[in-house]
Amino acid sequence: MTPETIGIVVNSVGRTGVLHQLTGVIARHEGDITSVDILGNWPEAARTYFEVLLPGDLEGLVADLRSLPIVRSVEVVKSLQTIYGKRIIIMGGGAQVGQVAIGAVSEADRHNIRGEHISVDTIPLVGEQKLADAVRGVARLPRAKALVLAGSLMGGEIETAVREVRAQGLLVISLNMAGSVPEAADLVVTDPVQAGVMAVMAVADTAKFTVERLKRRVF
Amino acid sequence: MTPETIGIVVNSVGRTGVLHQLTGVIARHEGDITSVDILGNWPEAARTYFEVLLPGDLEGLVADLRSLPIVRSVEVVKSLQTIYGKRIIIMGGGAQVGQVAIGAVSEADRHNIRGEHISVDTIPLVGEQKLADAVRGVARLPRAKALVLAGSLMGGEIETAVREVRAQGLLVISLNMAGSVPEAADLVVTDPVQAGVMAVMAVADTAKFTVERLKRRVF
Repeated sequence: MTPETIGIVVNSVGRTGVLHQLTGVIARHEGDITSVDILGNWPEAARTYFEVLLPGDLEGLVADLRSLPIVRSVEVVKSLQTIYGKRIIIMGGGAQVGQVAIGAVSEADRHNIRGEHISVDTIPLVGEQKLADAVRGVARLPRAKALVLAGSLMGGEIETAVREVRAQGLLVISLNMAGSVPEAADLVVTDPVQAGVMAVMAVADTAKFTVERLKRRVF
Repeated sequence: MTPETIGIVVNSVGRTGVLHQLTGVIARHEGDITSVDILGNWPEAARTYFEVLLPGDLEGLVADLRSLPIVRSVEVVKSLQTIYGKRIIIMGGGAQVGQVAIGAVSEADRHNIRGEHISVDTIPLVGEQKLADAVRGVARLPRAKALVLAGSLMGGEIETAVREVRAQGLLVISLNMAGSVPEAADLVVTDPVQAGVMAVMAVADTAKFTVERLKRRVF
């Protein structure tokens, strides 16, 4: 039996080394931490969220966390993976990003109603270096599965970043635009609404759409 | 002088207790961990991302992380806070969420061009309990500053969740809709594009718009 992912929020004092102490307790319970977020970190108080695959007893882990002198309270909550699920990231110019979002949100709605968990995240950005940094950053975003580049002109360092994140397993869809990014992407889609829909279909388990099985890559 | 936030990606073996060992090294260097993400956690390999406020020497910290037997490599990267910045979260029905996103993305574009860092994240969802869970989950999302509820009917448990996250400091904007959620929100906005624009203006340091100074809360 695969252990369930458990969400835990720990309220503690705020101090260097808090995470080290908390993770020590989780490690002693052989909990496998699949996600962690620091929700707040002030001089007086810290709030930390863990998702843990726990082979053993949840009550024992919670009791041991509570017994740490730095800990004020512990709450067991639903995991973010369960709530927000897979993420599609859309970045580029405001006009195009908004249209791609329309397609992606509508399509995610249809799949989420059937039991999927897909969210659609966007960032409007301008500039080669900022976009290249943001593309590389997607590989560090938890639960990100696909990236849609929505602009009129992207190339240079952005193309290099696209090739890097594709090598790390991310699906990249580009609008049909000027510059070298379309050549570096998995798929090139001309209509922004269609690009958003295809991005969601590609990551949804409830959709019959496999990028590898497509006969062409420009639409 | 406030120390700069540094992004560090650590590639290591995948094993229970990895995070405990890594955070131990950071604590010894008196690094204050402001954010952490587990990018991958497989039996053979793990990839962990930290944002650290470091009073001392970065090279020393990187060298000590590298010297751990579990660590394969360490990269210094740009922080996600620097790249993606503040987050606006939009949730509800696909039709409305898409329209709010149009407004929020266009407005974020205008502020990001002037030096802000605002991203717009969405999740289309249906059902009282799922939405209530997602609203409560926003308080656990890193960098989330405002929530827009975009639907035709929301109340009951969702209203309770809205009051909870507002008490935790989150700004909540509701579309003008049926149900009790509009009564519980900071602002009620009828036009979805306007709701998205106002959400971004409320969190942007580059905008002159303060919710507390508004003379009315329904638009």
